[in-house]
Amino acid sequence: MKFSIGKYDIYSKARCGRLETEHGSIETPIFMPVGTAGTVKGVHARELHNDIHAEIILGNTYHLYLRPGTEIIGHAGGLHKFIGWNHPILTDSGGYQVFSLAANRKLTEEGAIFKSHIDGSKHTFTPENVVEIQRKIGADIMMAFDECTPFPCEYKAAEKSMQLTHKWLDRGWNAYLNSDPLYGYSQLYFPIIQGSVYGDLRLQSAEYIATTDAEGFAIGGLSVGEPHDTMYEMIEVVNAVLPADKPRYLMGVGSPENILEAVARGVDMFDCVMPTRNGRNGMLFTMNGTINIKNKKWENDYSTIDEEGDVFVDKEYTKAYLHHLIISNEILGAQIASIHNLAFYLRLMKTIREKIQSGEFYTWKKVVVSSIMQRL
Amino acid sequence: MKFSIGKYDIYSKARCGRLETEHGSIETPIFMPVGTAGTVKGVHARELHNDIHAEIILGNTYHLYLRPGTEIIGHAGGLHKFIGWNHPILTDSGGYQVFSLAANRKLTEEGAIFKSHIDGSKHTFTPENVVEIQRKIGADIMMAFDECTPFPCEYKAAEKSMQLTHKWLDRGWNAYLNSDPLYGYSQLYFPIIQGSVYGDLRLQSAEYIATTDAEGFAIGGLSVGEPHDTMYEMIEVVNAVLPADKPRYLMGVGSPENILEAVARGVDMFDCVMPTRNGRNGMLFTMNGTINIKNKKWENDYSTIDEEGDVFVDKEYTKAYLHHLIISNEILGAQIASIHNLAFYLRLMKTIREKIQSGEFYTWKKVVVSSIMQRL
Repeated sequence: MKFSIGKYDIYSKARCGRLETEHGSIETPIFMPVGTAGTVKGVHARELHNDIHAEIILGNTYHLYLRPGTEIIGHAGGLHKFIGWNHPILTDSGGYQVFSLAANRKLTEEGAIFKSHIDGSKHTFTPENVVEIQRKIGADIMMAFDECTPFPCEYKAAEKSMQLTHKWLDRGWNAYLNSDPLYGYSQLYFPIIQGSVYGDLRLQSAEYIATTDAEGFAIGGLSVGEPHDTMYEMIEVVNAVLPADKPRYLMGVGSPENILEAVARGVDMFDCVMPTRNGRNGMLFTMNGTINIKNKKWENDYSTIDEEGDVFVDKEYTKAYLHHLIISNEILGAQIASIHNLAFYLRLMKTIREKIQSGEFYTWKKVVVSSIMQRL
Repeated sequence: MKFSIGKYDIYSKARCGRLETEHGSIETPIFMPVGTAGTVKGVHARELHNDIHAEIILGNTYHLYLRPGTEIIGHAGGLHKFIGWNHPILTDSGGYQVFSLAANRKLTEEGAIFKSHIDGSKHTFTPENVVEIQRKIGADIMMAFDECTPFPCEYKAAEKSMQLTHKWLDRGWNAYLNSDPLYGYSQLYFPIIQGSVYGDLRLQSAEYIATTDAEGFAIGGLSVGEPHDTMYEMIEVVNAVLPADKPRYLMGVGSPENILEAVARGVDMFDCVMPTRNGRNGMLFTMNGTINIKNKKWENDYSTIDEEGDVFVDKEYTKAYLHHLIISNEILGAQIASIHNLAFYLRLMKTIREKIQSGEFYTWKKVVVSSIMQRL
């Protein structure tokens, strides 16, 4: 893999780059739709590629490991073949889900012991076997196994957790270097910064993980409830230390506003369930603000879903129709809202790249953030 | 509207025809996907047209009347515009749903009083207002308001019910003749035969409804639990009496085998929730038999969904993947199975028409019915 930066914004830390993988290249800054258990919910693979113009998607190791399991994904020849997506895939390490979804989890120096939220069966994740699982899944980009601290988190606990994440990184990195890809294409391994909302811990963590020879670095443990300004501050702290020539991935973030602010601070990659999960609940993103399509005010609005949008659902369906579908719990409502929101996110990233290229990003961003999150 | 028959099969009562509406022409025998509440569940309008090759879809008056309601459909300029489907639509009359879904229904000579299954609100359907509702919906083909008898049903009750249906037909037909379409295109009105499983009642009913000058006729009250042979017998009785030059619509039927047998007895139009509802539960139709994709035997089967199928889901996804999606209750599983099954039904109808044209229908049908319903 190769990462090259094509343009730096002179008024902010934003930059445009290109990340090359053996499944295709990715223009950064990029947003990765979340395909939890081997599917971006409600969206066909061809829609992801042809209509939404997704360049890379994310899979959740925790979910995929539990169901269908690595044996089946292995028999299929990897996740790309299993789900019919022949473009780049990144998998998280399962750390976040173990701590948020699994039952009876127990943390040790060795790793995490947990019970499946599906059938209660007992499992163990270690920095080593999480590499092995991601080798089997065959993601183009694998993530290190980390502990994600909740918010709020005491300084001492955050420090201890960060140190554990660092120890796990050493073991995971070693397992990565001493294992081979299974399907004939190379796989990267991104370490993750932790340290909660404490600048000195974040700095220490960024410095620590930067000592690895990794091809990219992730910022974890943010967008877990802390104020946005604190998140932006932490991003500034770590991006001052991370190698400038490597991609930076802000995990699980976020709203369009969060993304614009993080890009301005030098972040290159994003993922979030917001466009699909909120979409299924009737929340639509537009450049002029967000729409709760369940509101009665849209019941009689026969304008198309998004006049500025260019994906087919924006042009072929009306707000009144989508209101009806979401109110009626129709599958098609979830499908339309998910496609609209994902296409919106990907179009936003494309515009961000264009604005960086043309030197207008900083002034444009200021205008956009004032309107993009207002409620319509 | 015009119906013309292009070819009669010499070994059976099957025939090929063309039904022309102002939203496009329909090749018969045809299958109509069911779009209950303004959506064929899990399927985009463009998929219905481009991938499944549906020529006409069905909407349920009962569902559409309750939600979103005729006022909103009227403001949208009719159902076609509301749902983004610019091809023919048929609506049922609501009779069947009133008797199967609504609560506290009460039948009078005047009509049916019922409570909404959604919010308990009280409503009345009469032969007259059901015409008015369907005028507002704007279906190309509207159906008469009828009472659908359950199975089993005593002879006396079936006779009384049939007589009520006939009285309602007179009133509905009158309301139809004395009202105009609202959106600039003509709408047809099909009467419905009842009479349960009693040949003499069916004959009487067919003769009665044939006295109207309708452009097409429907056979209702079948596929409600009676043996298949009884259903086929009733079809034979009524088709001997119905005008040969008008389309015949067998309501709510059925399995591929049922359709093949009914076509052989002179039926031209079909609708059924089976391809979508059973699809959502993991049942797939193929020419070689049915698949329960939830079965463990498909867990490791990496062959495509249907090697004889030509719709994109058949070629882009594997059985193992669909097994995973359906087991995991993923929306995409319902989408894939619905598209596969609907495309299968429409392809089956196309093959039926080709076999009638080539004179092979009767011998081909014999072979197909012996395999098409076996369990794979």
